[in-house]
Amino acid sequence: MKNGKLIHDSVHGTIQLDEWMVRIVDTPEFQRLRRIKQLGFADLVYPGAHHTRFEHSIGSMQVARHLSSDETVLAASLLHDIGHTPFSHSGEKIIQKYLRKEHEDIEHIIKNSSINDVLHDLGLKVKRIVKAVKEPPVSSVIDVDRIDYLLRDSHHTGVAYGVVDFGRLIEKIRFDGERVYVEHGGVRAVESFLISRYMMYSAVYHHHVCRIARKMFERAVEFLIENGEIEAEDLLRMDDYDAIAVLRSSEGFPCETVRRLDERRLFKRAVYAERDEIETSVERIDAGKAEREIAEMAGVEVENVIVDIPKEESSEYTVPVLVDSEFIPMERVSPLVSSLKQAQISGWRLGVYCPREHLDKVRKASFDYFSIRMSKQKRLSDLLEL
Amino acid sequence: MKNGKLIHDSVHGTIQLDEWMVRIVDTPEFQRLRRIKQLGFADLVYPGAHHTRFEHSIGSMQVARHLSSDETVLAASLLHDIGHTPFSHSGEKIIQKYLRKEHEDIEHIIKNSSINDVLHDLGLKVKRIVKAVKEPPVSSVIDVDRIDYLLRDSHHTGVAYGVVDFGRLIEKIRFDGERVYVEHGGVRAVESFLISRYMMYSAVYHHHVCRIARKMFERAVEFLIENGEIEAEDLLRMDDYDAIAVLRSSEGFPCETVRRLDERRLFKRAVYAERDEIETSVERIDAGKAEREIAEMAGVEVENVIVDIPKEESSEYTVPVLVDSEFIPMERVSPLVSSLKQAQISGWRLGVYCPREHLDKVRKASFDYFSIRMSKQKRLSDLLEL
Amino acid sequence: MKNGKLIHDSVHGTIQLDEWMVRIVDTPEFQRLRRIKQLGFADLVYPGAHHTRFEHSIGSMQVARHLSSDETVLAASLLHDIGHTPFSHSGEKIIQKYLRKEHEDIEHIIKNSSINDVLHDLGLKVKRIVKAVKEPPVSSVIDVDRIDYLLRDSHHTGVAYGVVDFGRLIEKIRFDGERVYVEHGGVRAVESFLISRYMMYSAVYHHHVCRIARKMFERAVEFLIENGEIEAEDLLRMDDYDAIAVLRSSEGFPCETVRRLDERRLFKRAVYAERDEIETSVERIDAGKAEREIAEMAGVEVENVIVDIPKEESSEYTVPVLVDSEFIPMERVSPLVSSLKQAQISGWRLGVYCPREHLDKVRKASFDYFSIRMSKQKRLSDLLEL
Amino acid sequence: MKNGKLIHDSVHGTIQLDEWMVRIVDTPEFQRLRRIKQLGFADLVYPGAHHTRFEHSIGSMQVARHLSSDETVLAASLLHDIGHTPFSHSGEKIIQKYLRKEHEDIEHIIKNSSINDVLHDLGLKVKRIVKAVKEPPVSSVIDVDRIDYLLRDSHHTGVAYGVVDFGRLIEKIRFDGERVYVEHGGVRAVESFLISRYMMYSAVYHHHVCRIARKMFERAVEFLIENGEIEAEDLLRMDDYDAIAVLRSSEGFPCETVRRLDERRLFKRAVYAERDEIETSVERIDAGKAEREIAEMAGVEVENVIVDIPKEESSEYTVPVLVDSEFIPMERVSPLVSSLKQAQISGWRLGVYCPREHLDKVRKASFDYFSIRMSKQKRLSDLLEL
Repeated sequence: MKNGKLIHDSVHGTIQLDEWMVRIVDTPEFQRLRRIKQLGFADLVYPGAHHTRFEHSIGSMQVARHLSSDETVLAASLLHDIGHTPFSHSGEKIIQKYLRKEHEDIEHIIKNSSINDVLHDLGLKVKRIVKAVKEPPVSSVIDVDRIDYLLRDSHHTGVAYGVVDFGRLIEKIRFDGERVYVEHGGVRAVESFLISRYMMYSAVYHHHVCRIARKMFERAVEFLIENGEIEAEDLLRMDDYDAIAVLRSSEGFPCETVRRLDERRLFKRAVYAERDEIETSVERIDAGKAEREIAEMAGVEVENVIVDIPKEESSEYTVPVLVDSEFIPMERVSPLVSSLKQAQISGWRLGVYCPREHLDKVRKASFDYFSIRMSKQKRLSDLLEL
Repeated sequence: MKNGKLIHDSVHGTIQLDEWMVRIVDTPEFQRLRRIKQLGFADLVYPGAHHTRFEHSIGSMQVARHLSSDETVLAASLLHDIGHTPFSHSGEKIIQKYLRKEHEDIEHIIKNSSINDVLHDLGLKVKRIVKAVKEPPVSSVIDVDRIDYLLRDSHHTGVAYGVVDFGRLIEKIRFDGERVYVEHGGVRAVESFLISRYMMYSAVYHHHVCRIARKMFERAVEFLIENGEIEAEDLLRMDDYDAIAVLRSSEGFPCETVRRLDERRLFKRAVYAERDEIETSVERIDAGKAEREIAEMAGVEVENVIVDIPKEESSEYTVPVLVDSEFIPMERVSPLVSSLKQAQISGWRLGVYCPREHLDKVRKASFDYFSIRMSKQKRLSDLLEL
Repeated sequence: MKNGKLIHDSVHGTIQLDEWMVRIVDTPEFQRLRRIKQLGFADLVYPGAHHTRFEHSIGSMQVARHLSSDETVLAASLLHDIGHTPFSHSGEKIIQKYLRKEHEDIEHIIKNSSINDVLHDLGLKVKRIVKAVKEPPVSSVIDVDRIDYLLRDSHHTGVAYGVVDFGRLIEKIRFDGERVYVEHGGVRAVESFLISRYMMYSAVYHHHVCRIARKMFERAVEFLIENGEIEAEDLLRMDDYDAIAVLRSSEGFPCETVRRLDERRLFKRAVYAERDEIETSVERIDAGKAEREIAEMAGVEVENVIVDIPKEESSEYTVPVLVDSEFIPMERVSPLVSSLKQAQISGWRLGVYCPREHLDKVRKASFDYFSIRMSKQKRLSDLLEL
Repeated sequence: MKNGKLIHDSVHGTIQLDEWMVRIVDTPEFQRLRRIKQLGFADLVYPGAHHTRFEHSIGSMQVARHLSSDETVLAASLLHDIGHTPFSHSGEKIIQKYLRKEHEDIEHIIKNSSINDVLHDLGLKVKRIVKAVKEPPVSSVIDVDRIDYLLRDSHHTGVAYGVVDFGRLIEKIRFDGERVYVEHGGVRAVESFLISRYMMYSAVYHHHVCRIARKMFERAVEFLIENGEIEAEDLLRMDDYDAIAVLRSSEGFPCETVRRLDERRLFKRAVYAERDEIETSVERIDAGKAEREIAEMAGVEVENVIVDIPKEESSEYTVPVLVDSEFIPMERVSPLVSSLKQAQISGWRLGVYCPREHLDKVRKASFDYFSIRMSKQKRLSDLLEL
């Protein structure tokens, strides 16, 4: 401990970094995470949401400690987000498209950085850490990543804050070397975790304004790549400051987009449709193609149309609960959790977004393109949104 | 304010009592509420649950202030629980049975107490206060009573604590002189209120141990009345200390019951059945008759069998939301609320309780009497209960 | 764990009782603590302060677990308050006077109870537990008792709530088998602990109304003993319900006192003097003698005069901090702690209390008896008290 | 309200912006505050401290609402920080030196921005707003600015979080059109406010690492100005992104400094002296001159020496308390507050900072230059710092 370090974390309180962890944290590549916002542009809706991948990475390690003392696991939880691009998920699609990588694919990043040498010095195997990043307890239906980001995003947005009793949760989940599961007596704690998760999804992660800003940024960066101003790979070394600087110093569409983001003149919601309202099979929609065709039908530039089809994620509801010697998924054990899953499914929305001045044209074109019928009930609930 | 008073409340912080309120609070009848536990015997499960009707009454008034400045409403919110008997709801059934009254029928109590003179001096009409106790905003699908008790019971049990953001809730509910409703922008706040309520019902209000203790006490007090040791009306003047004293100084069954409660040797759960598992129509069951017949079938004394059929309360899910100029029930606006209602319905249980040594006999008799078939799934979820 | 038990604690969240602990907790003598209020009559000032020695005892054990895994230490922390009398400290002086015991002297209580057999069965030595109750980490300048009661009393009074970050504190204090000390990096956490303690002393423990009610009860119980209605030893078996019942069924002064407490018609403050304002040396004052003489000078019954001379406790400010390999007292390390000690000393007050109607006579007699001069400044700060 | 807007604030919960406020908030000049960190580089020590002047400005308005409904006051509380430069206080000295302005001098900024037109449209006088920014309740010994930043900085650093009960505080402070004061019954609430303030000063605002980073940035920006790369006035239009971009694209010292900040390779503490340890009269020290001479004595470049002489601010301890009809300063009413002031004074430190490799030379030169004698005691307490 002599040479360790104390971190003052706004969620977990004081965190003790052991000396070997400090060596990882002190690399320039890890310090870069200090300058990558965890929730991208969510601060446009939740002005307190400025926290970064840095705190989250350290917080994930702290959660991991409750489940394991394996240094490979702890290192993996520290490093699991090292592959994030500026404004976090905002760059994810670009990396997938141009580099065929996920942000969890971190081997090439570690290998080409000073972290490689540090890990080597510490006697930790890169291969094993890279693997551990994609496995329990770092990644699972309930994992150290999700637990930390839910608590942290709640704290900084003020949504669902206090719903999860972290102490109780962490006492009742276990990692048996293979899976993360809930012990007898932990059902209520996991219920609150999933309630909190549901509330965060509906109020933050899937909030249409957050998604609009993310998509606008994504598109501006893609424009830079397509025009050869940056390489997709550069994103893995850039921080939020670099991304904003390059957009501001560019010309035309990217520069206009960053100004829109700066002045909060965002695209508006032309369409916000439930699954039932869409005749077309949602799974078969190609967002890029839809954008091009809707733009053409509406008679506007393609840059002016964003089609957003959120992925449905509901695996969390299957968190295994240990009953006698059997593992049973939460959604079968808890009526509340099974209800939450239904509520989440009925909360899904396909969005089409465009500048305010094109709203009518784009809405009309989208209704035609997707064959949408909109119910009165749905309009009411959309009206009521925060 | 000069002659008012500050109350340090563990939920609302500092509460200012105006001079006229202090005069009501200072009557011996109101001070008696200091010695009536809000949650009866729930401290056997949640050891911190010792709070009383006194704090709750003042807290309800504090909530009422956010909705109205009408002194009749404020006095009604202060006085709405003046008719409670020792250990709160634990005496409710007795009062209904012997006096044909509800705890909300407070006219006779006020008339026969020093509160009557105080109200007269203050120029407040008893009739109007008595009426206001049963009307919005004191009593409604969302009301000052429910808001305060939910926050307070959460605080003292540690269940669902922090789920409701009181500040946000109170800013978004309105009383228009007729109904309490939710404003545009308050849907999320009411959702959290209902989540919290759901969690409290399943973990506290309907917790089988809380219900067992309440039923045991109820039965012991009823025994005293039936044997002429006290009058049902006495309960309206007694506090928890009086009730325990009279039980302790009695003989036989009541004395044995209070010793069981003191030493936490409670009846156990012989049956805990879902609605679907019971062939008999639940609405038509007469608990008293069932107890007598099951006791006979099992060959045990009738004092040894408790049949508990909880009321289903789900009106809260209809909290009206103001959309444009229409009021729409929450359960139609929010997928989450509609899911909570389903979860509550599937959480309902009929319970049969008896001393540990009679468990097998009573279980068997009850299964026969109610024609119960029990599924494996249900047994699992019962196993997992806290 | 199979046969252990989960306790829902309002301060620590879920607490796991091991099977052997459950056996101690399930004895009637331990269950009695459920019915002894932790803060006596403090609920007359802080209406939420109804928590009991039961929760506190289990909470202390939970704190102890962070410092030690020795079963003797854990059992001692569970049992350290088994010797409390009704309304906690309210009976302390009586036990000291009549039985020459402190509430920490628990050997005779354990020996004469079913706890003795349970400990024997568990292979735990009573002698060692009895000794451990008076030693670190159960009793010390910072100990498991103080940490738990401070957190718990804060939670239930709403005073200084949230000031102490328990997680941070518990991570930074250590028990080395001999002393409880603070580690490098824990100074701030202990500072907040001591700030909280200071606030609790000035707002709760030394609040004049709390002290008045305690003294009134003490005197009524003493009256019962002097008149042979109960034995001092009975107090060790009685709970709050028993004490109130015996007072209510008595005649004259004790009965009148319990009615005053019930209706909150308390004695008032005739004198509230700083040390500097009293010419007489405070250390040499005999409270009983002073009461008799002041009563005579004032021409009132001696029952009507209460002289209260609070003990000064400031040992907590000496919590040892480990610097290099030396232990240094907090008050020397932290300017803030040294300042708190000064603030506490200047907050000390000698109180004389009596019924409202005798205030003038008793005040005058007290001023003469103690040779008090009162400054304007002091009167101001008394005026401002909550 | 129809055209107003709801803000989700992490401290105050939901904040309602009236339509006229939205018009101010929507100007590009106000939106720029979204990108100016409230605590500059404090996130190097407290990784959660990323909040911005944007939230703080809106939060200050929310606090102001509790004290006044005057639109000039509300507009002033919204606009009081519009004159901040990148990384907040980090640019303060530069503005003072080159523009002879404070960040509260906002007239020229408003006049040259779109805010001017908006205010004109709204019928609000710029002159009156500009004046209100420097007067109670926006600026005072206790004011809307301080209340909001203390709560907010606590929330985001995790230091002293929960110490202040905002509800209680805001209920007990009043603005009489002339001064902000504390009412009878609010002494304890203000005590907690001042405890929190003390803790924040010692743990955050005066934390040596925060001060070092701020001074490093300040010096790098000053270097850019001295070399004609930017004008001092540009800082009033720049946000944090612009400042980092210009530093990163510069050469030599500024570029090296931003890399040091990015990689957290900060200057170290060569000297950290109490007032009593310095023979030289602190008031007469010219920091710039001292830096030059110490650099020369130590034989290092002047860029490598930072002399930091924090201002002493203790006016908060004089918050007026209304007693009868007199205003009395808190430090005279409360022993605790008077003690805090002493603790703050003894916590003051003069710092000299330099790169790690020059520590010895610079320490020696500084000891000579300032005639410092350092006590053992002080070294201990420095050792213990977080």
